[in-house]
Amino acid sequence: MKNIVSFTALVISLTIVGSSAEARLGKTSIDTNVVNLSISETEVRNAQDAWGRALIQISTDHDKSGARAATETARKVIDGAYGYQLGTVLFKPTLTSGEQTFRTTKDGALAYFVGGNKAYPTDSGFALKGWRDFKYENAGVFINGDLALTMGKVHLTDKSGKVTSVDKTWAFKKDSSGVVRIVLHHSSLPYQP
Amino acid sequence: MKNIVSFTALVISLTIVGSSAEARLGKTSIDTNVVNLSISETEVRNAQDAWGRALIQISTDHDKSGARAATETARKVIDGAYGYQLGTVLFKPTLTSGEQTFRTTKDGALAYFVGGNKAYPTDSGFALKGWRDFKYENAGVFINGDLALTMGKVHLTDKSGKVTSVDKTWAFKKDSSGVVRIVLHHSSLPYQP
Amino acid sequence: MKNIVSFTALVISLTIVGSSAEARLGKTSIDTNVVNLSISETEVRNAQDAWGRALIQISTDHDKSGARAATETARKVIDGAYGYQLGTVLFKPTLTSGEQTFRTTKDGALAYFVGGNKAYPTDSGFALKGWRDFKYENAGVFINGDLALTMGKVHLTDKSGKVTSVDKTWAFKKDSSGVVRIVLHHSSLPYQP
Amino acid sequence: MKNIVSFTALVISLTIVGSSAEARLGKTSIDTNVVNLSISETEVRNAQDAWGRALIQISTDHDKSGARAATETARKVIDGAYGYQLGTVLFKPTLTSGEQTFRTTKDGALAYFVGGNKAYPTDSGFALKGWRDFKYENAGVFINGDLALTMGKVHLTDKSGKVTSVDKTWAFKKDSSGVVRIVLHHSSLPYQP
Repeated sequence: MKNIVSFTALVISLTIVGSSAEARLGKTSIDTNVVNLSISETEVRNAQDAWGRALIQISTDHDKSGARAATETARKVIDGAYGYQLGTVLFKPTLTSGEQTFRTTKDGALAYFVGGNKAYPTDSGFALKGWRDFKYENAGVFINGDLALTMGKVHLTDKSGKVTSVDKTWAFKKDSSGVVRIVLHHSSLPYQP
Repeated sequence: MKNIVSFTALVISLTIVGSSAEARLGKTSIDTNVVNLSISETEVRNAQDAWGRALIQISTDHDKSGARAATETARKVIDGAYGYQLGTVLFKPTLTSGEQTFRTTKDGALAYFVGGNKAYPTDSGFALKGWRDFKYENAGVFINGDLALTMGKVHLTDKSGKVTSVDKTWAFKKDSSGVVRIVLHHSSLPYQP
Repeated sequence: MKNIVSFTALVISLTIVGSSAEARLGKTSIDTNVVNLSISETEVRNAQDAWGRALIQISTDHDKSGARAATETARKVIDGAYGYQLGTVLFKPTLTSGEQTFRTTKDGALAYFVGGNKAYPTDSGFALKGWRDFKYENAGVFINGDLALTMGKVHLTDKSGKVTSVDKTWAFKKDSSGVVRIVLHHSSLPYQP
Repeated sequence: MKNIVSFTALVISLTIVGSSAEARLGKTSIDTNVVNLSISETEVRNAQDAWGRALIQISTDHDKSGARAATETARKVIDGAYGYQLGTVLFKPTLTSGEQTFRTTKDGALAYFVGGNKAYPTDSGFALKGWRDFKYENAGVFINGDLALTMGKVHLTDKSGKVTSVDKTWAFKKDSSGVVRIVLHHSSLPYQP
């Protein structure tokens, strides 16, 4: 198993890496106009981090301000962090099954995160479970141009201190305006031998 | 849920699509030299199909010729169909857990498929379970240049007729010589509510 | 030398190819959600064709409605067909030289096409030369994901019937919303031995 | 105009940048398996530099060891640095015209560089002109995954001290094994107003 990065430490280290990378780029470039549309390792980590932060935000909004506020936040998160405007997202959430296993539409994703949609009767709202902390351990990262794949363990801690661990795969796509979006997300409970 | 494609029917339809696509290309191009390094939907389906065929081959070799023959076949399959020579493959097999959940090395993948490796004591050989038929239903396909993502259900039938269904994500990378390889593979048993 | 495609014939043939390709795609897909962000050969030809049409439009607007109208059209063409909003375009127009050879900014491109910018004193407005017809012969096309390269001869005919031929390279980038833009354009007069 | 990088200085600076980039990568990664198939700015500059070095090598081999040695070197350069094995290269050399303007085959490229091919009667061997020094000034660099575009001035100095400047566009493709190849090359003499 690989690196364990805690939420707070990550934000700090990313800032440092970011600025040193910028400094280095300036030196290499010697005034040349350079456009680089590939996704960097730092951008991948930022996106993973943003996902965890968003999940915690929805949970916190739910606990502080209720279901409507949490739904509003979830809607913004899905619009901003997922790529449903590209046509479809390949999304297999942790706790879905049967005919509704895959949530390739925005409505299906929203139902999973905050529940309250009669069309998805088994959804109780994964993001409403009082999440307070988020850690990830990448087993590997595969960067292919503007698309990056990550696979690893994600550990979520709720307000009672209970930790839930899942096996998680993400594909992040950086569009030409620099916005990074999740285009694939497969999450599963660990196999119990 | 989406298309159900049976193994035998697929091979035939792909051949037909393949040749009509070639004919069409010749017409469009009007003698121009065209190199196209992107992966096509047909190549993605061919690769999914090849994975199923390979799994059945390992099982059949095992039943007919024993463990050594099956291991030899599995080794060839991993060399030919997975991208370990790129440095790592993001592989989360169906039945792995704990510290050995992710099989980012070729040895780890081989152990999972055919067992017999003391370093992976819980592996009994997933490909040796007498598989005889393979079907897949893609919930979605996302093509991004030379890399394609697929997500859906895969149904495996063993020689007793028992069907095992899994939720499966693949990323296929077509290299510059036209060879398509699996660079990510996340398989999980359906969630039991 | 390769295919000679006349302007009018092209539009018709592209439409036909386009619809047959769509029909074929529907059949292959069998209801699966497919997102494909790669650029197709048809999209490349459409973009080449659009460039020629735009040049003729600027010329025609100039002759019919004067310099201001032509400038307005040119501005729209550059905004719509070139990728300056990505940060820079690698543009070497046919008739530029010295310190102003490369037009990596939008202002530099506009000055080249319609003149009238004191900062570019040698620019007389390439698009104002009364162009009425456009043909291209691709020597080759190289497609790499969402980016396509073309190289070949472009023949421009003005209202007096005089033909100007140039050696031209384009790189077209298809962004995630499906818009195709020129990110590189190198044009040069044929070498005179 | 942008950065002027002399041949010798470049080799040194690239080595330094290379090792610092490696060091940085190790730090960022914290033991994660990372595969990155995108081309970096450093790899682009290395490839530009390698092209100049190769041209000088062919010239030097010609002057020291004669035409046969130069041809052997040119053949190796084309095999190693150009992408003809991908099917075609979009190559418009500086001094070609008419029906033989574009050299989309390996034979056409070799004839241009070293002459001696009756099928290309106007080729006298561009690489045999006694080149001794090479400098480039990039007007811009556009990186899109594993493919990079560069455009700028290239200045070649021969053994008599005479400098020839050309406007040059390159597209470099990094294949999955890490080898960087020229897939497009458009070179033209500056426009004479």
